[in-house]
Amino acid sequence: MVQGAVPPSVTQLIETFSELPGIGPKTASRLAFHLLRGRSEPAAPTQAPPTLAPPTLALRLAEALRNLVENTRFCSQCFNVTEQDPCPICADLARDHGLLCVVEEPLDLLALERTEQYRGVFHVLNGALSPMEGIFAEDLRIKELELRLAKGDIREVILATNPTSEGDYTAAYLLGRLKHSGVRVTRLGRGLPMGGDLEYADAVTLTRALESRQEL
Amino acid sequence: MVQGAVPPSVTQLIETFSELPGIGPKTASRLAFHLLRGRSEPAAPTQAPPTLAPPTLALRLAEALRNLVENTRFCSQCFNVTEQDPCPICADLARDHGLLCVVEEPLDLLALERTEQYRGVFHVLNGALSPMEGIFAEDLRIKELELRLAKGDIREVILATNPTSEGDYTAAYLLGRLKHSGVRVTRLGRGLPMGGDLEYADAVTLTRALESRQEL
Repeated sequence: MVQGAVPPSVTQLIETFSELPGIGPKTASRLAFHLLRGRSEPAAPTQAPPTLAPPTLALRLAEALRNLVENTRFCSQCFNVTEQDPCPICADLARDHGLLCVVEEPLDLLALERTEQYRGVFHVLNGALSPMEGIFAEDLRIKELELRLAKGDIREVILATNPTSEGDYTAAYLLGRLKHSGVRVTRLGRGLPMGGDLEYADAVTLTRALESRQEL
Repeated sequence: MVQGAVPPSVTQLIETFSELPGIGPKTASRLAFHLLRGRSEPAAPTQAPPTLAPPTLALRLAEALRNLVENTRFCSQCFNVTEQDPCPICADLARDHGLLCVVEEPLDLLALERTEQYRGVFHVLNGALSPMEGIFAEDLRIKELELRLAKGDIREVILATNPTSEGDYTAAYLLGRLKHSGVRVTRLGRGLPMGGDLEYADAVTLTRALESRQEL
């Protein structure tokens, strides 16, 4: 930043915004300057220094961030983000508590909920195994998963890790740890995505689609 | 959002993020869930409900937003965003206070400062005239500009509004209001941008480039 042209509190906000994923320095500075708008018109220069009406969006965002930190916790059963413990999904007796879907992140759980087809419960791992990034089995909630299975109420575990090399590796690792538990372990189907084009499908996707071809 | 799967404080943060320019619902939810990470590992499900270490990035962002609101104001001379009044640029006696560059926004001022070629002072209009969007002369700091010129210290005003129809309209309007002040009024040069390709230049840019052609 050019010395003098940008005050320190603006620079600080730009730098903090830049720490968010997908937000580069240009976007960060656009966001910061956007939040500086919408203030009351300053007084004429001959009068007292302009007083500012607080930019409401900046304050509301600060408030929403504080609320997030203060009100959310992890569900003690499935480790989804929640405000009550157990979370509304775990507390829902209408759901099938014998069917457990293992996902990497809360956003993956959300994607499955959006289908409105899944009526079991979840287990959020908090990521996928990635020795390259230093994420090992003890960093994920695998022990907690085994404790849940040890209670004997679960008849099927669906491994719904991402279709990436880390996700596949995590699923293979989990299968190794769970196969002696007597619980049925399944994996989400692989193949061509809806709306996809065969011409542009990558080789791995096509291979998986061939392998999982079905009788008509 | 799917009922139950996302707690209200997370939904609230997603909605607030979505109010920022260029941030859609998908990006907003990615940001919110990113801020939920980096917490302490929850206790095992058999123990007390997991307590959370506050996600530092969320709190630092909230703090940076509060600092922005509390510490920044408009410079009473140039109306740039500043923490001191007058701002470091207006207070710099080494700069040419007889040369005044009129810009729409603080980010435009910043772009000019980055050239390290301009040594005059600034006047931030707070936007451009746009009757379609309901932005009229009284919404911009034009009266304040006239008051500055009335003091008689300024010999040249450079109109550096954006090269858009609103910016050009604003510059033309300002010229009309300033031409009787006896101050020299100039406009930033127009033409082909550095690194541009003649083949892809639009007709208006080429027309301006022809009009402002220079003897070699």
